[in-house]
Amino acid sequence: MSKTLFPRPGSAAEAEEGRTLAPKFDADGLVTCVATDASGDVLMVAHMNAEALARTIETGEAWYFSRSRQKLWRKGETSGHVQRVTEMRIDCDQDAVWIKVEQAGPGACHTGRRSCFYRAVPLGARPEVAVLEFRDSEKRFDPKAVYGKPEK
Amino acid sequence: MSKTLFPRPGSAAEAEEGRTLAPKFDADGLVTCVATDASGDVLMVAHMNAEALARTIETGEAWYFSRSRQKLWRKGETSGHVQRVTEMRIDCDQDAVWIKVEQAGPGACHTGRRSCFYRAVPLGARPEVAVLEFRDSEKRFDPKAVYGKPEK
Repeated sequence: MSKTLFPRPGSAAEAEEGRTLAPKFDADGLVTCVATDASGDVLMVAHMNAEALARTIETGEAWYFSRSRQKLWRKGETSGHVQRVTEMRIDCDQDAVWIKVEQAGPGACHTGRRSCFYRAVPLGARPEVAVLEFRDSEKRFDPKAVYGKPEK
Repeated sequence: MSKTLFPRPGSAAEAEEGRTLAPKFDADGLVTCVATDASGDVLMVAHMNAEALARTIETGEAWYFSRSRQKLWRKGETSGHVQRVTEMRIDCDQDAVWIKVEQAGPGACHTGRRSCFYRAVPLGARPEVAVLEFRDSEKRFDPKAVYGKPEK
């Protein structure tokens, strides 16, 4: 696939009230992407460059850009845990994307959990000594067996 | 309130499997924050610096850091549309926070909507000519009357 270019962002009013998809990529060429499942739980937060966003739109499967590996990343390319996108939304200033997905396989997180957000931060406590609480943190697969090297 | 410092991030294993809150702030000193409501809808995506994160934990109300205004921002400080945090989660590598909130007032978005994600991106189409579809996009308040200048 050739590189797909999106229109350049226009004014704030155009970004907020227009029907043109003109994403506001950051200095690294990325927008933030939040993936939720049908339960409304956030599975993961990752980033998309223009090509990842374009491929996600075209294919209906989630593609990201891995900042750690500095490469395009089809979610599930190693694990088979692909994400079928049922709906994509973009936010007011077009620098963040929300995808609702059907997660294939046991989980989205490279640690083996369903969601990356498997620890709660206690509220009302002193933040600097907060002790995280594991929630919904059951490991559903063996990340070493599935990934070898982390997919991230 | 004095500036609260979090422990420095440790190894990947400590970040992922530990009980210590040691957020991995980016080069700008920020983590990404996703706010969802009880319906599971994403209301907004914003950023927190160390102080915003600390205040959110201590007070149970959402504080952010405005990149456009380069200042600490208590959500609702202008509009009264505060967010009461019912649960906070942190992700595997501790660079993203998910808060479940009760949104006071008619909406979270500075454009007057309930959520910032009021437009859908059609899937399967050519991305560069995508026509956004407004969804759940009713303006519930007059942003000029409520904000004067946008709170963002």
